[in-house]
Amino acid sequence: MKHILLLATGGTIASQPTSEGLAPAGGADYLSERLEFLRRDYDLTVRSILELDSSNIQPEEWQLIARSVWAARGDYDGIVISHGTDTMAYTASMLTYMLLGIELPVVLTGSQLPLDHPLSDGTDNLRAAFAMAASGRRGVFVAFDRKILLGCRAVKTHTMDFAAFESVNHPPVGRVSAAGLSIDDAAIPAVEGPCVLRDKLCREVFLLKLTPGLDPRIFDMLLERRYRGLLIEAFGAGGLHFIRRNLVEELRRVTQAGMCVVVSSQCLYESSDFRLYQTGQKVLEQGAIEARDMTTEAAITKLMWALGQTDSVDEVRRLFSQSLAGEMAK
Amino acid sequence: MKHILLLATGGTIASQPTSEGLAPAGGADYLSERLEFLRRDYDLTVRSILELDSSNIQPEEWQLIARSVWAARGDYDGIVISHGTDTMAYTASMLTYMLLGIELPVVLTGSQLPLDHPLSDGTDNLRAAFAMAASGRRGVFVAFDRKILLGCRAVKTHTMDFAAFESVNHPPVGRVSAAGLSIDDAAIPAVEGPCVLRDKLCREVFLLKLTPGLDPRIFDMLLERRYRGLLIEAFGAGGLHFIRRNLVEELRRVTQAGMCVVVSSQCLYESSDFRLYQTGQKVLEQGAIEARDMTTEAAITKLMWALGQTDSVDEVRRLFSQSLAGEMAK
Repeated sequence: MKHILLLATGGTIASQPTSEGLAPAGGADYLSERLEFLRRDYDLTVRSILELDSSNIQPEEWQLIARSVWAARGDYDGIVISHGTDTMAYTASMLTYMLLGIELPVVLTGSQLPLDHPLSDGTDNLRAAFAMAASGRRGVFVAFDRKILLGCRAVKTHTMDFAAFESVNHPPVGRVSAAGLSIDDAAIPAVEGPCVLRDKLCREVFLLKLTPGLDPRIFDMLLERRYRGLLIEAFGAGGLHFIRRNLVEELRRVTQAGMCVVVSSQCLYESSDFRLYQTGQKVLEQGAIEARDMTTEAAITKLMWALGQTDSVDEVRRLFSQSLAGEMAK
Repeated sequence: MKHILLLATGGTIASQPTSEGLAPAGGADYLSERLEFLRRDYDLTVRSILELDSSNIQPEEWQLIARSVWAARGDYDGIVISHGTDTMAYTASMLTYMLLGIELPVVLTGSQLPLDHPLSDGTDNLRAAFAMAASGRRGVFVAFDRKILLGCRAVKTHTMDFAAFESVNHPPVGRVSAAGLSIDDAAIPAVEGPCVLRDKLCREVFLLKLTPGLDPRIFDMLLERRYRGLLIEAFGAGGLHFIRRNLVEELRRVTQAGMCVVVSSQCLYESSDFRLYQTGQKVLEQGAIEARDMTTEAAITKLMWALGQTDSVDEVRRLFSQSLAGEMAK
């Protein structure tokens, strides 16, 4: 029987109704009592490390979760992390980098309705997560709605539907059906080991989603407050306005000041390509790094992580020029 | 034969390759020469009002386009606006509000490849746009990839695919097939007339897409720089972090200073619901307005437009409590 560790962090799956809406309900005991259905097939240990709505999962929690996985990795065949859905894609992406090359399956899951709700999707999601955790595949994954996604490709696209997550610009790596858990090994990138815990990150990173006519004074704020990294969600395949309000000129200013600027698309699907249009080419000339087909969640966490590993913009550029664990197409 | 006016604003559809990538190619003559295939069915007038990559379409251009439509509305059966795809959804949303109750079809279209490209989707998109412009339906629409969308529900979701736009949280209002243009009139909301040009808007509006651990100092900047409106793309159905970095407290501060704060979800599909979770309820207690199922494009332009119509936060709240033209579910 496979030994699986469940690290509980809170989220809807372990929530209960209160007069103020759903709120975290309890820790290891609460969950453990509700997981009897898994004990016939798995040797299960439950450990509560956080009891948070995932809107409150932040860099400090990412580090705590990564360290908890790291410390336990030798004692289990796989690790499941129960987590709120709201920021699960961010956490899954960050853990992908912090635990690059991890030797066992690390599977995040959660639910849209609490385990105690009569229609809860939590039971199904836990079943899929445990099957993946017992599969021996290396890496960080999200299990949700009968699918297994690469952690760094997951995006929460729906607020209510049980199919809350999509695997963006990459096929799902697994599916649950009457055939059991079918895993597409070609969709799981090989990562060179051995794994070293790299849990440093930089918090002075800002996400700027462009809107037409955006006032360039935001860049003054970023400089004054000494932000080290900036991810810009540009228009379409890669556009920023430069007439009247010259964002290209601002980009020059912040990159020359040493800020690390990554540019992506605010379109959910497919890749940015800043070489395609005149406006995009102007952006690349200022030294911006392209996020290509990465999700926003994978790009912002990669930037925070990369700036935690190095002070060199060139080294960050090198880290963004390649896929570390499937977060961008080769 | 229906009289249709084509207002050209630039975009890929009227672009040509240059050494710096695709760039706007020309105005009325350039397009007019390429639209012979439409003249058998429509009495066509082409007028070039802008020659811009749509990344450069900003509030001033929205006003110019709205005024051009307004001035021409009595002389034509319908108006087509050719426009770059990158910000088309923003423009379509803003025109919806500026031209609320417009008596004829106003149809935005464009293409992913220039009209001169041998595989261009521009011809198909123009065919659909002209058919919709001749349909007599009132309102602002987007015609793309054999579908007609409500302008205020369009989102550019793909950077490359010809199916670049989706109608988010609302069915398409028309489809092109061998049956011709089939229009679903039930999906076109009735808007009370008469139309009055309302082209004032407020530019001091900021879009803040949350990331885990976002530094609350951004709110100081928004207060110092006297922003009047703020749209927050929160996590999931409606979450903001409040431990260590207390965004809920910051919300209180900016709403008390008179800033108009609208909260939405960064999930593309379905509605936000800030009453569902404890974290979301805290947000509503600070006086934030819910964007519910509006797209980000429709919400940010509605906020800019609403603050152009009134200085009263209560009046903005009233405008956001109802669907003006189908931009939110009733």
